[in-house]
Amino acid sequence: MQKSVDSARANLIKYSIRTLAVVADKLKELGVNVWAWENIGDPIKQGHQVPEWIKEILKKICDDNANWGYSPTEGLLETRTFIAESRKKQDIPLHEKDIVFTSGLGHAIGMLYEAMLGTGVRTICPSPTYPSHSSMESFITGKEPILYACRAENNWQPDTTDLEEKIKNNPDIGFILLILPNNPTGACYSDEILLDIARLAKKHHLAIISDETYINLIFKKHSQTSMAEILRRVGGFPLIVMRSMSKDIPWPGGRSGWMEFYNYDDDGNFLELEETLKQMLRTQVCSTTMLQAALPKIYGDARYPAHLANFIPLIEEQSEYISAELNKLDVINCVPGQGAFYLAAVFKEGVLKPNQTLAIANPEAKIYIEKLVSDPKMPLDKRFSLYLMAAKGIFVTPLSGFEGPLGFRVTTLRTDLEETKKVYDVITEAIKEYVK
Amino acid sequence: MQKSVDSARANLIKYSIRTLAVVADKLKELGVNVWAWENIGDPIKQGHQVPEWIKEILKKICDDNANWGYSPTEGLLETRTFIAESRKKQDIPLHEKDIVFTSGLGHAIGMLYEAMLGTGVRTICPSPTYPSHSSMESFITGKEPILYACRAENNWQPDTTDLEEKIKNNPDIGFILLILPNNPTGACYSDEILLDIARLAKKHHLAIISDETYINLIFKKHSQTSMAEILRRVGGFPLIVMRSMSKDIPWPGGRSGWMEFYNYDDDGNFLELEETLKQMLRTQVCSTTMLQAALPKIYGDARYPAHLANFIPLIEEQSEYISAELNKLDVINCVPGQGAFYLAAVFKEGVLKPNQTLAIANPEAKIYIEKLVSDPKMPLDKRFSLYLMAAKGIFVTPLSGFEGPLGFRVTTLRTDLEETKKVYDVITEAIKEYVK
Repeated sequence: MQKSVDSARANLIKYSIRTLAVVADKLKELGVNVWAWENIGDPIKQGHQVPEWIKEILKKICDDNANWGYSPTEGLLETRTFIAESRKKQDIPLHEKDIVFTSGLGHAIGMLYEAMLGTGVRTICPSPTYPSHSSMESFITGKEPILYACRAENNWQPDTTDLEEKIKNNPDIGFILLILPNNPTGACYSDEILLDIARLAKKHHLAIISDETYINLIFKKHSQTSMAEILRRVGGFPLIVMRSMSKDIPWPGGRSGWMEFYNYDDDGNFLELEETLKQMLRTQVCSTTMLQAALPKIYGDARYPAHLANFIPLIEEQSEYISAELNKLDVINCVPGQGAFYLAAVFKEGVLKPNQTLAIANPEAKIYIEKLVSDPKMPLDKRFSLYLMAAKGIFVTPLSGFEGPLGFRVTTLRTDLEETKKVYDVITEAIKEYVK
Repeated sequence: MQKSVDSARANLIKYSIRTLAVVADKLKELGVNVWAWENIGDPIKQGHQVPEWIKEILKKICDDNANWGYSPTEGLLETRTFIAESRKKQDIPLHEKDIVFTSGLGHAIGMLYEAMLGTGVRTICPSPTYPSHSSMESFITGKEPILYACRAENNWQPDTTDLEEKIKNNPDIGFILLILPNNPTGACYSDEILLDIARLAKKHHLAIISDETYINLIFKKHSQTSMAEILRRVGGFPLIVMRSMSKDIPWPGGRSGWMEFYNYDDDGNFLELEETLKQMLRTQVCSTTMLQAALPKIYGDARYPAHLANFIPLIEEQSEYISAELNKLDVINCVPGQGAFYLAAVFKEGVLKPNQTLAIANPEAKIYIEKLVSDPKMPLDKRFSLYLMAAKGIFVTPLSGFEGPLGFRVTTLRTDLEETKKVYDVITEAIKEYVK
């Protein structure tokens, strides 16, 4: 058959987390014991339990025949009403019709950028960023991502000077992406920074996309204001907020996500985007009905806050331990996490070199990895990750896969700190060995 | 904000079934009693029951914490193994790695065409067709759909002469879409036709996409061969088969779908498409885990064939009654259904005219509908559907929304034949009144 993929465009899709999982599977086939999976943000896989009362809610939902049927494309009305009412309690006006459910936030992300196809309108993403955003935005526009710096030296806060400069230099930019709190850095953004970004959006007539997947998972002593609240305070820019039920229940396999459209100033172009997105979603009928039916029952239950109060300290304890351990190494800077369940560890300038290795005991795995790293275009942090995986059986995701500086992202999801200590004893020794 | 939608391109997305649902909702708001929903293919909404034993399977799956987590992007290995083994029992070689789960087939359809972005490669669709295919193919290529005729006068079988002519005249065509059995016509395609189409694909080096959503729902005395079986017999073309668990359980709200990639001749271009699609799906992580976990338990259960043996005759009885009733009208041709749960009724040539109306009792609804039908570009069958909805409270979907001849599609999903008789007494009288 004829060629039906634009290969250059397809190469813009980068999703290191799962692409490297293919390498891990291959290593397992070759007999390598990949025993520590610090890559995927799935609390379930790391041993976290869904509370029994949530399971009971879902089982009751299974019993009701109606929940096996389609939902409206935008989502069940009672679920959207519940969400809108929750916002109204915070004095944030949100109409049911401006809430749209999707099959997980990755799906929402893909559809949102696809709706802009053919216009050349760009979204500027943070660096580092969650790669679903930068990849699908790139794929649709056929161009490399545009990024604004968030620097580890500044606790991963966005550099608004860099952001404004990029906006001025690129008239195609129509959207600013925020991830609150950020994946992969685990940083919360201050109100001051968010107000600055809101001012930039207003000044340059941009809309904001605020991915708030992890906003219910904030550590004690920290806080994260929703961009919808910033909008309520200052007005003047269209806003899409993305939310999910994947991470806090935790129910990542449920594929839930929704978008909230805030159009205070009745911007026709923004409304056209919302309507186009809904029309595209109609061709896919709807997202999972049972999960939507469960949402108000779970979030409306008095046991939900108690569940979070149990869950968050587990993540926080791990996060604190890991950043402290990694910061003992003078070649690493790992800003302590403030929310979500990720940490981004950065190799200090000039530490990584293209000739560093770790000893790989399995001969076939050695040949396989050496072939992979012989690619001269391979980022040096990916090279490190591949050696760590093949030599020590530990899977961390390179930060270059998040359009960030050279480093790696780890998750902070283990339930047993003793296990974590074992993993990080090996990681820290491996880093010393690799960079010496 | 700046314009971020290519409006001309967005207009290529046509999904009448759910777009008209917006009109129906509006009519309800205005006080019209829309009492007969003959539009959406959801057995649950029409009163079909999911068997208790299937509900019990799902409830056990809810109890297992692991099922709340992510699945691999391609789908749970045990589920893909089950599907591959089922195919092997039919002597059809299929590897687990060539099965990819998505969040429903609408999602699969959207992602497949999106993977071809930027190449200009076209897929020729049947007319009439399921509009998710033609809409998303159009949207991605930015061009009107290319269609081959399936004619009611020939029992909705594809016109392979027309198909070959279109292929010869358009070198951009890289794929032929088949829908087996067809939505919206309810037609099974004969082996002879499928072998002809296979020969065309081989001759012109095309791949085939075979959407087999409804292949488990075939009426007695009819049969439908899977395109994978045709490929096994004659070889020589790459094939994507699309399957779903939405319609037969029935579990439309579950959002299940998967694609099977058949690449007998090791075509590198086809493999690149498969790999690109998987890479795109990685950015969306995975589809619903619980449903995937349920699939082998449901399809592997001895009670599944008995369930189908109960379910199919209910649909068939409705289908027979409805086509017979509609064919009593000399202005309608409604080919009896052979499978799935749809019927396409065609208005005979010249019957519909732009001045026909039905009396709308509700004054506001009358103004609303008259405004809609004042659009001179409105297809005449859509005009009829709008009048039927506003005047009689019955929702049928115009065939023009399926890129077909003027007519309407109805579903054959009621569980009570007496109810159906009431609905079709009104529809047949309304048609007589409308065309007189």
